[in-house]
Amino acid sequence: MGDVAWIAVDWGTSHLRAWLMGQSGAVIEARSSAAGMGTLERGGFEPALRALVGDALPVPVLACGMVGSRQGWAEAPYTSVPCAPPGADQAVRVPGDALNVRILPGVKQTKPADVMRGEETQIAGFIATHPGFDGVICLPGTHTKWVHISAGEIVSFRTAMTGEMFALLSSQSVLRHSMADGWDDVAFMEGVNQTLSRPEGLAASLFSLRAEGLLDGLPGEAARARLSGLLIGAELAAMRPYWLGQQVAMIGAETLNGAYVAALTTQGVPCQSAKADDMTLAGLTAAYAQIYGEAA
Amino acid sequence: MGDVAWIAVDWGTSHLRAWLMGQSGAVIEARSSAAGMGTLERGGFEPALRALVGDALPVPVLACGMVGSRQGWAEAPYTSVPCAPPGADQAVRVPGDALNVRILPGVKQTKPADVMRGEETQIAGFIATHPGFDGVICLPGTHTKWVHISAGEIVSFRTAMTGEMFALLSSQSVLRHSMADGWDDVAFMEGVNQTLSRPEGLAASLFSLRAEGLLDGLPGEAARARLSGLLIGAELAAMRPYWLGQQVAMIGAETLNGAYVAALTTQGVPCQSAKADDMTLAGLTAAYAQIYGEAA
Repeated sequence: MGDVAWIAVDWGTSHLRAWLMGQSGAVIEARSSAAGMGTLERGGFEPALRALVGDALPVPVLACGMVGSRQGWAEAPYTSVPCAPPGADQAVRVPGDALNVRILPGVKQTKPADVMRGEETQIAGFIATHPGFDGVICLPGTHTKWVHISAGEIVSFRTAMTGEMFALLSSQSVLRHSMADGWDDVAFMEGVNQTLSRPEGLAASLFSLRAEGLLDGLPGEAARARLSGLLIGAELAAMRPYWLGQQVAMIGAETLNGAYVAALTTQGVPCQSAKADDMTLAGLTAAYAQIYGEAA
Repeated sequence: MGDVAWIAVDWGTSHLRAWLMGQSGAVIEARSSAAGMGTLERGGFEPALRALVGDALPVPVLACGMVGSRQGWAEAPYTSVPCAPPGADQAVRVPGDALNVRILPGVKQTKPADVMRGEETQIAGFIATHPGFDGVICLPGTHTKWVHISAGEIVSFRTAMTGEMFALLSSQSVLRHSMADGWDDVAFMEGVNQTLSRPEGLAASLFSLRAEGLLDGLPGEAARARLSGLLIGAELAAMRPYWLGQQVAMIGAETLNGAYVAALTTQGVPCQSAKADDMTLAGLTAAYAQIYGEAA
């Protein structure tokens, strides 16, 4: 292991990821564990961090994500839109002298009420690596965020629970009996087009997946892809004011980015994609540089 | 116990209900158990029935619900719309000589694909007790059915998974942190009006319940009632062709009927309500009378 200068940490509800960073800004090593915030009591954060990167401590640690929520290690109160993505000057230092851990705050919006924690750091990373970007950033995932960016600031944003809905419906509802692993691009786009053109029909369209499975032998992978399409189409219908006439940057996992890009492209929306992990690291690196100088 | 002439059975995925019926058509005793179809292997049905009503056997048994599905005791193939609710002549006799058990079939629709099992018997009960009814029957529940009835026949129907969505979102999604038991009529109607007037906004409206809980202290019972309202409003938007300009009969649990009636009344839709259990028993009784004569 080279000379670790600091540790970048992405600490969400269900994951803990750490990058051991060198003086040059290069990643020496990436590690992860399942010790997400959701699995930890308040006293469990320090042991979880030590278990993952204890051999590299003590060096400064900069973290983002749910670790800064009220139920996290130390609360980093939300910054309000409109605002630049919170930087290191707004980071909260975890109490105690043993470790030097700072947590970046999330962002809140009053009307309509909305919150993010973690995505703001990915946004910061995207802005840092794409200076001058004006438009919309979409961060698909469990809770997909649509974010209007102007002049380097988060102007407004909305959340759709599409990923969580898909997980619940495909694995825990009656529809699970009609699902199989795999994918079907045609079925996905059928679903997207159905709810994007007639979003009011969503509630009547879901059980059809089960009924077509029973009556018509609809293949499980087609049912799964169409369910995803129906939900993403409904999300796009709700978020139309965000993407209509805009350029959209997707920040997410590669496959999920691809599904959204396929749907948006049919609507004539120019899209680019970036990987969520890359943007998280870029955002943490930019914030770290604010404290310790650009050379970091 | 009086002289049991036959046994009416409502056997769904998660419940088993039985009524011991006298010669006069009166209920001698009602019993129930948790031995729903979902908990049973194929060989488990007879023991489950004997455990509940073995002391009254052998008398004819007439059953409806998921017990007649492919994964049930004996498959009772679907009848196709348009059709009168299946009667005793379409009932399937469970193989074997030990017991005299008949199962009523469900109803299917080819386009759009849809299925029901159990609701057709409630519909038969409603038609039997409300002769001449023309209009729409709504059976709210885990999978709410909207059914167009004309001249005593099921013309068409659609299913909305509203009840299952509510259960999943309120108890298993991130929204569960913002929910509390209880109810708030005003919040419910706000939710209904929001998605009924702008159904395309559903996907963006759900996470607001969580955000308002975090930022504005939205009370848990208001969040729960508004979630229900948002989902029922979205269902009503999807089912508008069913209820617009129609009279609607609700067949369901009393509280749930009340929620739908409150929402439909604001749209000027005349509603009446009946209890699901009463209609199931009336439907089974009507079917039994077809086999054994009106005196049953």
